[in-house]
Amino acid sequence: MAERDFLADFAALSRIGATAGGGVHREAATAEDGAARRWLCSWFERHGLHTAVDEVGNMYGSAEWLPGAPSVLVGSHLDSQPTAGRFDGAYGVLAAVHAVAAARDAVTAGTVVPMYNLAVVNWFNEEGSRFSPSLMGSGVYVGAFDVESTLAVTDRAGVTVGEALADIGFAGTDPMPPAVSYAEIHIEQGRILQDTGTDIGIVTANWAARKYSVTVHGAQAHTGATHLADRHDALIGASRLVLAVRELAEAFEPGQLLGSVGRFTVSPNSPVVVPGTVTLAVDLRSADPDVLDKAHEQFLAVVDAVNNDGEVAVEIDSLSLRPSTRYQSSGIVLAEAAAGRAGLSSRRMSTMAGHDSVNLKDVVPTVMLFVPSDAGISHNEAEYTADQDLLNGVAMLTEVVTALLTRGSAG
Amino acid sequence: MAERDFLADFAALSRIGATAGGGVHREAATAEDGAARRWLCSWFERHGLHTAVDEVGNMYGSAEWLPGAPSVLVGSHLDSQPTAGRFDGAYGVLAAVHAVAAARDAVTAGTVVPMYNLAVVNWFNEEGSRFSPSLMGSGVYVGAFDVESTLAVTDRAGVTVGEALADIGFAGTDPMPPAVSYAEIHIEQGRILQDTGTDIGIVTANWAARKYSVTVHGAQAHTGATHLADRHDALIGASRLVLAVRELAEAFEPGQLLGSVGRFTVSPNSPVVVPGTVTLAVDLRSADPDVLDKAHEQFLAVVDAVNNDGEVAVEIDSLSLRPSTRYQSSGIVLAEAAAGRAGLSSRRMSTMAGHDSVNLKDVVPTVMLFVPSDAGISHNEAEYTADQDLLNGVAMLTEVVTALLTRGSAG
Repeated sequence: MAERDFLADFAALSRIGATAGGGVHREAATAEDGAARRWLCSWFERHGLHTAVDEVGNMYGSAEWLPGAPSVLVGSHLDSQPTAGRFDGAYGVLAAVHAVAAARDAVTAGTVVPMYNLAVVNWFNEEGSRFSPSLMGSGVYVGAFDVESTLAVTDRAGVTVGEALADIGFAGTDPMPPAVSYAEIHIEQGRILQDTGTDIGIVTANWAARKYSVTVHGAQAHTGATHLADRHDALIGASRLVLAVRELAEAFEPGQLLGSVGRFTVSPNSPVVVPGTVTLAVDLRSADPDVLDKAHEQFLAVVDAVNNDGEVAVEIDSLSLRPSTRYQSSGIVLAEAAAGRAGLSSRRMSTMAGHDSVNLKDVVPTVMLFVPSDAGISHNEAEYTADQDLLNGVAMLTEVVTALLTRGSAG
Repeated sequence: MAERDFLADFAALSRIGATAGGGVHREAATAEDGAARRWLCSWFERHGLHTAVDEVGNMYGSAEWLPGAPSVLVGSHLDSQPTAGRFDGAYGVLAAVHAVAAARDAVTAGTVVPMYNLAVVNWFNEEGSRFSPSLMGSGVYVGAFDVESTLAVTDRAGVTVGEALADIGFAGTDPMPPAVSYAEIHIEQGRILQDTGTDIGIVTANWAARKYSVTVHGAQAHTGATHLADRHDALIGASRLVLAVRELAEAFEPGQLLGSVGRFTVSPNSPVVVPGTVTLAVDLRSADPDVLDKAHEQFLAVVDAVNNDGEVAVEIDSLSLRPSTRYQSSGIVLAEAAAGRAGLSSRRMSTMAGHDSVNLKDVVPTVMLFVPSDAGISHNEAEYTADQDLLNGVAMLTEVVTALLTRGSAG
């Protein structure tokens, strides 16, 4: 039975790179990511999907009926954050695999007449924890990044994307299949569906995000011999920034702005040396572009204030803006109709987190779906979505894929 | 000429593990430390000193006249902090080498009649940046640490002290030579000698130090999807501790208390993950035991406050106290007389930083000397002491060593 197969597959996939705490640790192009990718290849083979790998390691499993026609692409990512949950990304890939196989079977049985070809996609390095930036494979697919410079990006050990992909056997040469539309399903990573008892979230827009790479420059000194007045302690300046970002975010109405520092690296990081340098990654997000602009101005003022207090020098090495943009209305309407056919409740909502679909919607009509996540816990081994919610999502995605495949007639 | 030889030797030693910024990077038992050690062995051989290496990698270069008699030990350490200055430790070893060779020559010439044997020592891992704790080799020598558990200490890559010493060819088997007294010279790492125009500092006591290993426990979460109210951000709690330690130190009179956080490690350290854990090393020091006790109580109150604000849980994993103790008066008087004979000005002072002599003085009469350091800059590539100050120190140490060698008659 298909539902039991899905849950068994999900259990098998979750064992790859499993952590003691019930999560997974499968950063992009590590051995664990390689193992998950081989598992997916084997699934494609066993179920008659054709495997292809492009130059930046995006993997495709396709069914082709119409030579030369574009494909309905359906997917997500198998890579994870360090000590992460087992649902983030992996659920979306496996749901896509099952939805695509079901739609292919319907075509084979003659109950669905396809207008396009069909392909599952596992995007390379959605998470960005090993290689920066995130949404890397889909970024190349949509033309936001070029192949050459992407393959040259290095991790903290100096290994390039190209080398890492070759190491795991996924430095491909296949062309990227052209898409006519894209669908993705993901756990919500928030509490709205759970709190409102809704089966499916239909995403209408992404939150805007601003990200800053910051270096705080101080001067190395002896913790036991350097008087406080003589110190330029990079950790003091960096800690002020961390707390200022939190205060700045808390000054907005609850839910309006998220402010965080995730990466924070101290040098030389010795017990008896006053830190000389700290590098940190600051992350501000809001659904409201005006709120984000205001937060941006306030963050620059915070940087100025820390710069001017005499302890350290703060430099913003790079900053990026991911604007808030809308998913196409046609896809939202299509998804609402699909939920109705599947007997599932749904609500429109925005996504706070980034997803590969944020890239894809810039080039093709895109449907982004959520299933509930328990207490909104995310990027944590305790991430959890109940089996029935997972299965509802597969049924929903199958309806959506089928509708996209026959869209020419459906409108 | 001896002075030119000393400066040439110091230049040669400074080239081993040299950094672009004019410092050295020679952490304990790394390839660079091994190279500095081989350079020292070669020096011993060329100058007729007998090389020995004990089980924890302490190196000795000895001259023996009285079989079975204990030795006057003279030394410091060749290991450094990361991207450190070239004077810290290395100057003391090289000054010891030249002082011991000069005293040995005087014995050979018949102008000094020794009561004891004589040995240079290069203590293993004074700095404690790669393997914790610091003052490791001298700690084993005085019996504060045992050999077996010291050899089993690991660095952050999981390499043990025993393995690292074997890797560089300095896992020795020679017995530790018994000492009758100990002398060490070091750069001041403070401004007192420079500000007062004094040639030599004679150390009367060490500052007391309390060190704490602290873990801040939060919960990993998504920077882009987890609402502030749902967060337990370890970096927020840890940043509060960093700033509280600085505030606590600044609340004392200037110069009374040093408070620092040197090591600070964030996990999982990914740009889009709210940190789950931060480990940090807190360092409080004072010349006054009452001030340090008061600071200790205040730090525990800070930990309680951060613990109680609901964001994180703070645990003190370990804490240690290095009490303030006095160097023996006999050695201070002996050193003052030696400065007089060498025509150098001197003043009594305490040491804020720890030195191997802090260990040695617990078991034998110990003389600890300082030469000026420019602007007190320390644990920094810009650390600097002028040639004449270096040479004054060698002359001073030679006088002290000669006096210690003939102490039976000198009193």
